[in-house]
Amino acid sequence: MGRVVVDVMPKPEILDPQGKAVAGALARLGFSEFAAARQGKRFELEVDGEVTQDVLARARAAAETLLSNPVIEDVVRVAAAD
Amino acid sequence: MGRVVVDVMPKPEILDPQGKAVAGALARLGFSEFAAARQGKRFELEVDGEVTQDVLARARAAAETLLSNPVIEDVVRVAAAD
Repeated sequence: MGRVVVDVMPKPEILDPQGKAVAGALARLGFSEFAAARQGKRFELEVDGEVTQDVLARARAAAETLLSNPVIEDVVRVAAAD
Repeated sequence: MGRVVVDVMPKPEILDPQGKAVAGALARLGFSEFAAARQGKRFELEVDGEVTQDVLARARAAAETLLSNPVIEDVVRVAAAD
C-alpha cells in the first residue's frame, strides 16, 4: 500500500495568525533562535497500489481543488511518502 | 537565512475526524484512488543563520513541547527545508 504526502502552506504574502502565535509562543518559551514561523497543513493519502506518476497527478489535482484554497494557499509538495 | 520544517501527524491509533472528512470529500469528488486520508500540521521555522545540528535539536525540542501534543500526535519529521 502506497502513500502520498501533500503539503499546503499559506502564501508568503498572506497573513498567518497561527504562525504568528507559534512564533510568539516559541519566543516566550526561550526558543529565541527561531525568528518567525508559519503553519500549514500536511495530508497523507493512502492508495491501494503503488504510487505511480498517474496517482501523483491525481493527488496534485485533489490538492489544488480540495486540499488547498488557491486564493490564500500554495501546494508546496506532492510526493510519495518515504 | 535557513528554514526548518516540522511535520506533526495524529498518532495512527487516534481517530482523525479532519482526515475522515477529507477522505469522504475525495470520494464524493471522484478521487476514488485514495482509500484513506489523514490530516496533520506542517510548520516552517525561520532561523537567522544556518540550520546546524544544534538548531535541529532545538527545533525537535520545540516540536515535542509546543508544536505537538505528545498524547495524540507524533512529530514525524524535523529537517532543514530543501
